[in-house]
Amino acid sequence: MTQVKVFLRDDEIPTKWYNILPDMPTPMKPPLHPGTGKPIDPEDLAPVFPVNLIEQEVSSDRWIDIPEEVIEKYLIWRPTPLYRALALERILDAPVKIFFKHEGVSPPGSHKPNTAIPQAYYNKVFGIKRLTTETGAGQWGCALSFACMMFGLECKVYMVRISYQQKPYRRLMMMTWGANCIPSPSEQTEAGRKILAKHPDSPGSLGIAISEAIEDAVVDESARYSLGSVLNHVLLHQTIVGLEAQKQMEKLGLYPDVVMGCAGGGSNFAGLALPFVRDKINGKDISIVACEPASCPTLTRGPYAYDFGDTNQTTPLLPMYTLGHDFVPAPIHAGGLRYHGMAPIISHLVKENIIEPRAYHQIKTFKAGVQWAQTEGFIPAPETNHVIAAVIDEANRAKEEGKEKVILFNWSGHGIMDLAAYDAYLSGKLTDYELSDEEIQKGLKAIEGFPKPC
Amino acid sequence: MTQVKVFLRDDEIPTKWYNILPDMPTPMKPPLHPGTGKPIDPEDLAPVFPVNLIEQEVSSDRWIDIPEEVIEKYLIWRPTPLYRALALERILDAPVKIFFKHEGVSPPGSHKPNTAIPQAYYNKVFGIKRLTTETGAGQWGCALSFACMMFGLECKVYMVRISYQQKPYRRLMMMTWGANCIPSPSEQTEAGRKILAKHPDSPGSLGIAISEAIEDAVVDESARYSLGSVLNHVLLHQTIVGLEAQKQMEKLGLYPDVVMGCAGGGSNFAGLALPFVRDKINGKDISIVACEPASCPTLTRGPYAYDFGDTNQTTPLLPMYTLGHDFVPAPIHAGGLRYHGMAPIISHLVKENIIEPRAYHQIKTFKAGVQWAQTEGFIPAPETNHVIAAVIDEANRAKEEGKEKVILFNWSGHGIMDLAAYDAYLSGKLTDYELSDEEIQKGLKAIEGFPKPC
Repeated sequence: MTQVKVFLRDDEIPTKWYNILPDMPTPMKPPLHPGTGKPIDPEDLAPVFPVNLIEQEVSSDRWIDIPEEVIEKYLIWRPTPLYRALALERILDAPVKIFFKHEGVSPPGSHKPNTAIPQAYYNKVFGIKRLTTETGAGQWGCALSFACMMFGLECKVYMVRISYQQKPYRRLMMMTWGANCIPSPSEQTEAGRKILAKHPDSPGSLGIAISEAIEDAVVDESARYSLGSVLNHVLLHQTIVGLEAQKQMEKLGLYPDVVMGCAGGGSNFAGLALPFVRDKINGKDISIVACEPASCPTLTRGPYAYDFGDTNQTTPLLPMYTLGHDFVPAPIHAGGLRYHGMAPIISHLVKENIIEPRAYHQIKTFKAGVQWAQTEGFIPAPETNHVIAAVIDEANRAKEEGKEKVILFNWSGHGIMDLAAYDAYLSGKLTDYELSDEEIQKGLKAIEGFPKPC
Repeated sequence: MTQVKVFLRDDEIPTKWYNILPDMPTPMKPPLHPGTGKPIDPEDLAPVFPVNLIEQEVSSDRWIDIPEEVIEKYLIWRPTPLYRALALERILDAPVKIFFKHEGVSPPGSHKPNTAIPQAYYNKVFGIKRLTTETGAGQWGCALSFACMMFGLECKVYMVRISYQQKPYRRLMMMTWGANCIPSPSEQTEAGRKILAKHPDSPGSLGIAISEAIEDAVVDESARYSLGSVLNHVLLHQTIVGLEAQKQMEKLGLYPDVVMGCAGGGSNFAGLALPFVRDKINGKDISIVACEPASCPTLTRGPYAYDFGDTNQTTPLLPMYTLGHDFVPAPIHAGGLRYHGMAPIISHLVKENIIEPRAYHQIKTFKAGVQWAQTEGFIPAPETNHVIAAVIDEANRAKEEGKEKVILFNWSGHGIMDLAAYDAYLSGKLTDYELSDEEIQKGLKAIEGFPKPC
């Protein structure tokens, strides 16, 4: 019997998150105030985020204790199993061992609660009663709803109207966890009312929903806003994934040659990758690969520049790879990867050639996802299919080169609420979106004249 | 830190199933041929099931080896974790420890693949190329689709037409695993064509779908039919759940005072319960409780009688608690519990007062399910909510009596494809169905004059 899974006992769960900031080979550029062009004062963020999370955002401590109350909630589904994809290995017949962290076992079905739980906890400790957020397809909204319920906070989710109508199941999941999920644009904020006055039938957008959620938080002293990716503290919380994986690989007496993950805002990828990035900085010979959609090729075709984190230009200017905050990604099914920018931490590491980006077209990713479902059993999320396509490529390359390789990747979530996307693929209705250089240049017009990070 | 989960390593997975037949305190009554009224010859079932499974159905061996190929597939998700429901315990503030087997971690999300996998395997070994089955809500159809894909068998699922239309996600899941799922009644069988000739708009029923699936199998030498509950070999395969649970409880140094499960056809309940029934027969002081819907109260209000297993009267007469094969259960959301009969093994043990049945109304079960989701996180299937309601009752009783108790139950599956049911509950649209004695008597008219088992 070949071992397929490696579990950690509850008492083997990591008790600290890993903060990569002090280990960066070169210093990161600071976020800038868009008005002054000067580095922002963390205090400026206080109406939006609680101060204890802002402190984490800028902390230079390498290890940050995970509060006991957070660990207690993590134990609902963590440590997650490390799996070996034996059945896929056999089909590929390549000299590789493929391992993955199964983040689909959480109650909302993805890696997102790894940060939703601590964010809800820190807000609660800070005295906050209510969190607001936006959600597109609904994965993040579900995770935050779950987390707020676990700590007795109210949760208000602004869900892009078209998703609200087309994806009722995600909304019902939030409702079951007691959240108040409403379609955006709404009549409940100034931002929403302004849009509705002009476009009563607006389908909404993530940009509008963000504006509504932030406005709702800043006008209510007892409320704060919560973001599910991009920021340093979000990536920090996700490192529990990679720290667990390191313990599990060690139990097997193995170390990966390649670490891979799909990357939208960057938190899922970072969660697995950053503890291995640390090893790489300390001299380990390891490839670390971020997989993004070819139709939203932030890392592979965007410049490293200062840009707003959101379409509505409400955030500080962040130093990152970006396609421009106006860029509207094609409607691929991997909604979680449709983001114009990339977490500053990941961007910096790509710039430093520590992380290698690769881009994949949608149809290829679904082909990989179906092959996965039909060999390994579990049906992956459309986002996860991107890294699976990359893993299969990597295995085939190892075969061509006759090189033995240990591949480790983050299986970020299940796809059983995304089956309509599989239907589209299996019935031949899926399309790829080619992006011309002109289109890329057009998106970048929005950041002309912005300060440059280099 | 209090331990929440107990894992077993892959190499700790049980390697034998437990067959309760040789341990029954009194001999079970045989299935009868409906024409002759005499015990059936197992050979009569050969056009429907492969001979190796028929042998398992009547085996008197206490332990039956699990083939290595089946264990390899079980390892995709088994051993499943044993969880302690600490958060619920705290809310209930009762002197109980509550443990559950999390069967929702399988690729299709329920306990069903525990038997789908070995059924596909034994059919394959017997030279069968294709399996047929019926499915109502889709849980069983998904499990068999998954299992057939794992062993390279074709799979044809007749899905009740109204479910096919209303629950597209389950159908898409089957499709993703390569199955051919069609709405029933269909034009592809004599049985289907007969119905459609009379009722072109027929919404279908489980009875019709069973007839179609059996007909499809018996007219094709290379095909067989597969059933997801009721039969002895199905319950046998499910015992892996209870055998794992026994190992896990042993690791904790605990033994349950009460073992509980929801019961429709009986296989989920049996899976956890039968290894503990063995202990009870051997003298252990333990309560074993089967939880059914008050609107389909087979065990609590039906007689122990001979009846057909299916509405269409195609099966042998089975000795079981039954509401009559004509009985149409109210449209509760727990589709998997809407069955007029009960597995003969479970029925016999209820008759012998070894298993105690309890019945629950729908609204109470959803109240329990929401309380569960809001404390323990995972959203349970509507079927699972029945046992959760019973567990909460049991805890409250222990509190009243001031008695310490260890409760163990089977968390049979997740409910994230049943969120519409939660929506109905949360918006106050759910109803309970009171069943009068007259209605019960009316259903039993169908078995008047049938042979009696006692």
